[in-house]
Amino acid sequence: MTEKQFDVLGIGNAIVDVLSRAEESFLVEQRLDKGAMRLIEAGEAERLYGLMGPGIEMSGGSAGNTLHGIASLGGKAAFIGKVRDDTLGQIFRHDMQAAGVHFTSQPATDGPPTARCLILVTPDGQRTMNTYLGACVELTPEDVDPVLVAASAFTYLEGYLWDPPQAKAAFLKAANTAHEAGRKVALSLSDSFCVERHRREFRALVEKHVDVLFANEDEIKSLFEVSSFDDALQAIRGQVEIAALTRSEKGAVIVAGPEVHVIDAEPVDKLVDTTGAGDLYASGFLYGLTRGLPVAVCGTLGAVAAAEIISHFGARPEVSLAELIADKVHSG
Amino acid sequence: MTEKQFDVLGIGNAIVDVLSRAEESFLVEQRLDKGAMRLIEAGEAERLYGLMGPGIEMSGGSAGNTLHGIASLGGKAAFIGKVRDDTLGQIFRHDMQAAGVHFTSQPATDGPPTARCLILVTPDGQRTMNTYLGACVELTPEDVDPVLVAASAFTYLEGYLWDPPQAKAAFLKAANTAHEAGRKVALSLSDSFCVERHRREFRALVEKHVDVLFANEDEIKSLFEVSSFDDALQAIRGQVEIAALTRSEKGAVIVAGPEVHVIDAEPVDKLVDTTGAGDLYASGFLYGLTRGLPVAVCGTLGAVAAAEIISHFGARPEVSLAELIADKVHSG
Repeated sequence: MTEKQFDVLGIGNAIVDVLSRAEESFLVEQRLDKGAMRLIEAGEAERLYGLMGPGIEMSGGSAGNTLHGIASLGGKAAFIGKVRDDTLGQIFRHDMQAAGVHFTSQPATDGPPTARCLILVTPDGQRTMNTYLGACVELTPEDVDPVLVAASAFTYLEGYLWDPPQAKAAFLKAANTAHEAGRKVALSLSDSFCVERHRREFRALVEKHVDVLFANEDEIKSLFEVSSFDDALQAIRGQVEIAALTRSEKGAVIVAGPEVHVIDAEPVDKLVDTTGAGDLYASGFLYGLTRGLPVAVCGTLGAVAAAEIISHFGARPEVSLAELIADKVHSG
Repeated sequence: MTEKQFDVLGIGNAIVDVLSRAEESFLVEQRLDKGAMRLIEAGEAERLYGLMGPGIEMSGGSAGNTLHGIASLGGKAAFIGKVRDDTLGQIFRHDMQAAGVHFTSQPATDGPPTARCLILVTPDGQRTMNTYLGACVELTPEDVDPVLVAASAFTYLEGYLWDPPQAKAAFLKAANTAHEAGRKVALSLSDSFCVERHRREFRALVEKHVDVLFANEDEIKSLFEVSSFDDALQAIRGQVEIAALTRSEKGAVIVAGPEVHVIDAEPVDKLVDTTGAGDLYASGFLYGLTRGLPVAVCGTLGAVAAAEIISHFGARPEVSLAELIADKVHSG
């Protein structure tokens, strides 16, 4: 087996977030589905940006956020994703590397600009995302370095990768390479509309390629086309080694073979912005797995990391997560 | 007199902030003067950025922050400043316009890129700034539209404009145009090192061109080369119509002709980041003046706006300042 160099390698859309506060009425006027992620073209991105309030720019992307979180927890993290050689691409690269994430994917030198996600945060802290994929559509199997995959204990893939047409092949190459090297594959279902778009393929993926699955309640219900959480829970049992099913303030349910754990959410003083909640949950959970901790403790680490991220604006941690979890790891 | 269209026109360096948390030890290693603003060249900006942690990008600039604040308070605000026609320039323009600030300065189509300020925020909430002026050096007197100046009750100038070589002439054109039109001129001294660089000229400016002066304790002491705050206070009396002298948590002293008011700082739950404290103080104070409020009430509005900005990351308000001051204006 290749020597392990990284705890987790993430592969995802490399995106810079543009976060702005918005009233509920703005979502209604613009007919936006609150809490969802929709894909938009360049023209719509320009139109919507023109209507949005003043913004804050921060590196984002679902797997990007997760890997930043893993580095902040003290894990060895690597990331593969496609930016362009433009200002936002430089910002994305800087932020990953400054967080301690190994990120050497070559930027595209032509084609569409670095991806951006226009995120509207309503007064209730909920986020509604509008993603212009830009350079992410240039990610191909050639960007997946098999040596890097084989040297990573976990390869973590975001379901959103199913949207850019060529990324799917990169995704499958990574999953196959990981398993051939005796490594584990983790997947986030990303978004319930994303599951709707790709349900049949996601079902096959989960059965054949995924060891650890992350999904929120809407996503797992959509995957199995059931209306109750418990039905979804029963459906996923036995399909993957571990499933971590998150339910916002209701906490999470962890399924691991015959074990089922129900872990409470970590309390937060004030919910400011849910952007990145699921991503950082995955950071904590995966970090725990790479440390060989029991799945219930992994669930608590996920809850702690998610609580940190929703207590402020943006999807990148504001404090050292390693310090935040220090007592949890020892007490576990 | 030209009909009034704007309460305040700001002229300043148009800058995008790159904010990052840093330890005290990083400032020591890099020999940075904590709390100060230093000017850096492109190469040093690249070097320092490479060493900084993950960043958050937000529109900034001292006068830019002040004018955003005035718009957020409900005032009619305009801004003149130079960006390039690049990504950061588009972000700056978007954010000003989205905040409701009239901003139509033409971007430079060649020359250096849009200015950026690398801001290191230490755990005590203090900010240390490193400014690459970029396109700001292209601001010339031609960018100052005399019709806009004459149509604004106040023209607000930042002392930092004395740094880019051609902006000084733009500054003086604006001040002269304002007075010829029977309008008022306000100035912020910006930074004690900036005062040191330009002390002789700033002294002449204050005597001849300034009606309303904003300065913090270090700046006003540097201007008059005195070591006690009270000496500086006595020195400024009679030199300008109104001087608002800010002293961080000690509050502010307002001098207006024979009147002297000592106004307490507004309490904050937690000091997160002092970036923009002085800028937003000026927002509140100037807004009060344009509403004809007593100077003591103007001081309170300044304190409330400053308290909002230091309770979170970044120098642009997170909430509607108009709602925040509603009771203060009525009780005044």
